[in-house]
Amino acid sequence: MTDYLATQRRMVDAALEGLLPGEDVEPYVIHRAMRYSVFAGGKRIRPVLCLEGARALGRGEPARIFEVACSLEMIHTYSLIHDDLPALDNDDLRRGRPTCHKVFGEAMAILAGDSLLTLAFEVLGHVGDSRLVAELARASGTVCGMIAGQVHDLEGEKLPPTAELLDKIHRAKTGALLRSSVRMGAVHGGACDDELDALSRYGEHAGLAFQIVDDILDVEQTSEALGKTAGKDAAQNKITFPAVYGLDVSRRMAEEQRAMAHDALKQFGPAAGRLRQLADLITDRKA
Amino acid sequence: MTDYLATQRRMVDAALEGLLPGEDVEPYVIHRAMRYSVFAGGKRIRPVLCLEGARALGRGEPARIFEVACSLEMIHTYSLIHDDLPALDNDDLRRGRPTCHKVFGEAMAILAGDSLLTLAFEVLGHVGDSRLVAELARASGTVCGMIAGQVHDLEGEKLPPTAELLDKIHRAKTGALLRSSVRMGAVHGGACDDELDALSRYGEHAGLAFQIVDDILDVEQTSEALGKTAGKDAAQNKITFPAVYGLDVSRRMAEEQRAMAHDALKQFGPAAGRLRQLADLITDRKA
Repeated sequence: MTDYLATQRRMVDAALEGLLPGEDVEPYVIHRAMRYSVFAGGKRIRPVLCLEGARALGRGEPARIFEVACSLEMIHTYSLIHDDLPALDNDDLRRGRPTCHKVFGEAMAILAGDSLLTLAFEVLGHVGDSRLVAELARASGTVCGMIAGQVHDLEGEKLPPTAELLDKIHRAKTGALLRSSVRMGAVHGGACDDELDALSRYGEHAGLAFQIVDDILDVEQTSEALGKTAGKDAAQNKITFPAVYGLDVSRRMAEEQRAMAHDALKQFGPAAGRLRQLADLITDRKA
Repeated sequence: MTDYLATQRRMVDAALEGLLPGEDVEPYVIHRAMRYSVFAGGKRIRPVLCLEGARALGRGEPARIFEVACSLEMIHTYSLIHDDLPALDNDDLRRGRPTCHKVFGEAMAILAGDSLLTLAFEVLGHVGDSRLVAELARASGTVCGMIAGQVHDLEGEKLPPTAELLDKIHRAKTGALLRSSVRMGAVHGGACDDELDALSRYGEHAGLAFQIVDDILDVEQTSEALGKTAGKDAAQNKITFPAVYGLDVSRRMAEEQRAMAHDALKQFGPAAGRLRQLADLITDRKA
């Protein structure tokens, strides 16, 4: 699995390299800022989920699937850059390095985020399937999408941590984009309704497992191991799984989500082997 | 012309009303912030240019053209919200009202901008023509697009005002989106290459006229008349047409752009009458 993931990441990185304007393209500074954050050692989980969402159908790799996969990483990176801004989470450290605004200043970080968001759609525009554009925008947007989650998250800092609010935050904040990662691969690979439903369920459960484990790691791990500031959730009064359910129940919930993710893949056979391994990797990871 | 424009604006506003999530949709605050800035009395020049770009072809109004037109206003509004932020232009007043971040706070203003940018592409995704997605993203992006212009503009504050830098800033910062407004209407209306070339030229010249007049008005008019802080360009050492060429030459340049905009429309006959009037309106406006 480690070898497989390293290979996938290298291929995703090569595709991103080709899609992002070079540092020698004017205006230099914005392209430097975009690249600084995109090539900061991300795990590329969303692109890999997208690739495997297509491969699970067992019909070979569709043309331009790497562009579709990269659009997801661009959206993810934009959201990290804006999330880290002083007006939002005010974080100095991301993936073990100073955040974009610490290096390039706030103005350039805001614009670098805007640029990656815009480029994600330019890439999909060239792929040529409008369904993917609508899907990515929905998953990133204010109605059940990523921004909805960020807003609930910001507002939640003032509220008591309830299970209902937690569910609302995470289904939107990280869940929607992770789910769409698998779905976009599946749609681009020509999934029928039945296949798309099953892969959507997989994406939903794998996404929830991801977030539960993320919250657990924020409590358990050091900043060094995470490459970002640990313990911030508690410090910022964030509504997290451990805060609502405690660590033991949270761990059990992550296991349940893993099991449901596996269950959703029943109809696919060996072509979905990597998706099964990814669900395990997401649940068992230590950083 | 005034009646015509008022009618067009009402129709664009009605379309925007239908496309933006309501203030009763959760999370309320983000939808309130988006609507606050979108319905702040904008002139809707980009949507109207888009509508007339389609109508100039003389083949009736294509289906869903209002959605295409609204996507341009969403991009424009997002750029204003982010431009006004403390880290960028730090402006308190826009269209005669406090700016988005003054009312909703910086975090929500950043997210409201992100949301409008995302929604613009969701709308185009549903329209279903990927060429429009690629066009809008390109016009908004970092390579010759709006963000390129913003970056040149920010960096230009430290540089001597040269004609070359001025051209680079405005061709990208406002020119690209105004040009694409006409082009997107034309593409959606089924323009052939020859028609699209001519309307692109029109959009380029009308866009340049718009920016030259904008720079002149910033010098000549009061904040009250403009509905935004006047005289900011000089205060911020911005590179403008009056700063590089003086007011008289700038006025003459605006007239030249108007004439070239008219010239580009020669092949279209009466169907392009509104585009001609719009070029005049852009050049003669006082706010």
